[in-house]
Amino acid sequence: MNKNDNLSEWYHNILEKTDIVDSRYPIKGMPVYRGWGLFMIRKMQQILEEMLEDTNHESVLFPVLIPEDILGKETKHIAGFEGQVFWVTHAGENKLERRLSLRPTSETPIYEMFKLWIRSHNDLPLKVNQSCAVYRYETKHTRPLIRGREFLWNEGHSAHVDEKDARRNIEEIKRIYKKLINDYLCIPFIISTRPEWDRFPGAVDTFAFDTILPDGKVLQIATVHNLGQNFSRVFDIKFEDKKGEHKFVYQTSYGPSFGRLLAALISIHGDDIGLILPPRIAPIQVIIIPILFKESEGEEIINYARMVERKLKRDGIRVRLDNSDERPGAKFFFWEMKGVPLRLEIGPKDLNENKITVVRRDTKRREQIELNNFDINSYFEKITKNLRTTAEDKFRKQFLTADNLDELKTHTGKGIIRTGWCNDRKCAERIEEYANILSVNKKQRRCIICGSDGTEILIAKTY
Amino acid sequence: MNKNDNLSEWYHNILEKTDIVDSRYPIKGMPVYRGWGLFMIRKMQQILEEMLEDTNHESVLFPVLIPEDILGKETKHIAGFEGQVFWVTHAGENKLERRLSLRPTSETPIYEMFKLWIRSHNDLPLKVNQSCAVYRYETKHTRPLIRGREFLWNEGHSAHVDEKDARRNIEEIKRIYKKLINDYLCIPFIISTRPEWDRFPGAVDTFAFDTILPDGKVLQIATVHNLGQNFSRVFDIKFEDKKGEHKFVYQTSYGPSFGRLLAALISIHGDDIGLILPPRIAPIQVIIIPILFKESEGEEIINYARMVERKLKRDGIRVRLDNSDERPGAKFFFWEMKGVPLRLEIGPKDLNENKITVVRRDTKRREQIELNNFDINSYFEKITKNLRTTAEDKFRKQFLTADNLDELKTHTGKGIIRTGWCNDRKCAERIEEYANILSVNKKQRRCIICGSDGTEILIAKTY
Repeated sequence: MNKNDNLSEWYHNILEKTDIVDSRYPIKGMPVYRGWGLFMIRKMQQILEEMLEDTNHESVLFPVLIPEDILGKETKHIAGFEGQVFWVTHAGENKLERRLSLRPTSETPIYEMFKLWIRSHNDLPLKVNQSCAVYRYETKHTRPLIRGREFLWNEGHSAHVDEKDARRNIEEIKRIYKKLINDYLCIPFIISTRPEWDRFPGAVDTFAFDTILPDGKVLQIATVHNLGQNFSRVFDIKFEDKKGEHKFVYQTSYGPSFGRLLAALISIHGDDIGLILPPRIAPIQVIIIPILFKESEGEEIINYARMVERKLKRDGIRVRLDNSDERPGAKFFFWEMKGVPLRLEIGPKDLNENKITVVRRDTKRREQIELNNFDINSYFEKITKNLRTTAEDKFRKQFLTADNLDELKTHTGKGIIRTGWCNDRKCAERIEEYANILSVNKKQRRCIICGSDGTEILIAKTY
Repeated sequence: MNKNDNLSEWYHNILEKTDIVDSRYPIKGMPVYRGWGLFMIRKMQQILEEMLEDTNHESVLFPVLIPEDILGKETKHIAGFEGQVFWVTHAGENKLERRLSLRPTSETPIYEMFKLWIRSHNDLPLKVNQSCAVYRYETKHTRPLIRGREFLWNEGHSAHVDEKDARRNIEEIKRIYKKLINDYLCIPFIISTRPEWDRFPGAVDTFAFDTILPDGKVLQIATVHNLGQNFSRVFDIKFEDKKGEHKFVYQTSYGPSFGRLLAALISIHGDDIGLILPPRIAPIQVIIIPILFKESEGEEIINYARMVERKLKRDGIRVRLDNSDERPGAKFFFWEMKGVPLRLEIGPKDLNENKITVVRRDTKRREQIELNNFDINSYFEKITKNLRTTAEDKFRKQFLTADNLDELKTHTGKGIIRTGWCNDRKCAERIEEYANILSVNKKQRRCIICGSDGTEILIAKTY
């Protein structure tokens, strides 16, 4: 499996072989999440939810169905989504009186309830989040975890007394997402302000987190929106302030896509052998493989391996002893493909010297060390740091500057290109069009990411 | 809130006041799960999934949508569900070529993939489980957590080489469910074989877990099905055995309803004050309330309370210090209503003597003890045991025997009634009808639960 020659083939192959998703389910854009992939998605979810709960977010779960009249309340919002909505029209033998949509996102149902939950300034800020699937009828080419018709995410929603507090929340969320994406998943990214014509439908401002995959194309992995009072005015979400006046709340909403984060993690860290997983997210962090030369040594080595396994388990490590009948070489191959961060080999020499042989998945470095000196957390830290810096080095090289159209031509498709701009949509479209003309495949989507000062713009091909 | 006079009113009141669910969401039978309730559902899910993973179940997640042709493959199965299915017919502006159902249960989509995943006897047994929402268009009266149109459960599915292994799995699942329901949730139940006319659509045998709510009505909380080869024959799920022959697998499926388990837990353990939660499932296990008489003592007491909080947190206890401006009495009232198992009061006397005052939610008993002698796990065990035995005592009293029709008349509506039977559907219907005629409200559903030997039958009104 050569990753650099054909990322797409490598990616599909690895998803199937390592039990991430099975794309053969008979609905386009709706794969089955399998054990190895689902574990990592739920681990991300758990890490994120803990940080959200620490910042006073309530974890809730809203129904998957939204009545048509509620979904349609905010004009710009529904205009942005209506082409993508799945509609439930019948139940049993009955035609429903009003159509019900599968949620494409949950601003509208959640704010319908915010109206009931918010009475006074004492109820604010109100912050909720839910981890769930959302549904969008994508007509574009679908790609597992990256662009599907059912995808898993966490969405947060907040209401505040004023714009200042809403903006403070946006900064807090950016900090939380940065921690998840960078500290835990080792994925480099940039945060940028989306141009006015590319905002979330109904938002005043949209901030996006983008990373770059090894093929030079950009993947948007999370967004944070400042909704101003756009939704509170149509959903009539008011609070009584300290003076007894009734005012509309200010709102924000935000969400990372767990599928896209997983896709980025797989594509950025993986190699020709298979997955390379950051330790904090890996379903199995340590695989122990006994190396038996003679039958007679078997029992002693297995007992030693079991003792090591128990010791690690006590420390809360996700460890497994592979005691199957396969040859060690086959086991090495399998668990390397699955991306397990550390392999412990335990053979007669290790047993006799009270040592273990430790092999890192990322560097493939092998060392024999005293069992008593084995500091697993220091290994995990080193692996995490190495994955992060390797990915950041690559990311920096994919971050290019074009001072003229020729350079734009050279750089197109190799990452994010920074170039001059006159702070105007037409100008952006010309740049976009120029880059597009230069692309090998005209069907590839482009992407405009605006700098904050209006004098420069970032452009890239995108998933 | 008087629980015994009007269970239904008490129940709805408590769901709203303690943030379990909000039923005001504008679709019938689809409430919003709020923080306090969602935590407990996810805790049950976590406990269950860990036991399932320990018995080699893979955790998967299938799409919520099932194409009509796949849902309809097993004739009896679709006949049992088609009146209850929500149908997606449109997406964006398009009418879909084939209708897609919201899963009412997932035998059909999962077995469509089992066909691809199973090749040889080495792939068996195959056991998967998913925690998800399922959708049924209930035309009956809905009731939050008990009967809804969207409900949360875990469903397990297995495939085996022979019937013996399938039956062995059924026994293992019964053991796992028993552990969740009895050990963790302290809910008493009986397991019975459902009569032939009340089996899961497509099953060879259905085993049901039923509990009794304080109003004498029965609530089915989990089921386990022996599917035989009914599904493997229509979904063409074959394996190659050791002799190279191709055979259809034997299958089982099973699921508890998290909503119903939560409803039972709330209704069975609660009292007029509010919830009483088993420690292992409670979102907050210990609430610490500082008692300040004089302003001057404030800081010292708060520091002492914080020290106790930190100590408990280090031990993995879900603890909160309520340091708000409310009076202690108001705090007691609030956290008792929420069902927190233990309250620690910390006042000047506690501080001076290095003690704490411990108040149990279940018995309301208060004792002052040395902080160094405070063994929290022993408290949790005592509370758990007390909740379990109290519930079991009540349950036994609701388990009645009728030796004649007069006794049947007297007992109807007071629990599960055991009575004679001639092992025949007509006979069961006569008993059922008789009990029904005697019921105050003719609309209440009845329930037949068969004994295993065909000479006796269990009958009850049911939710």
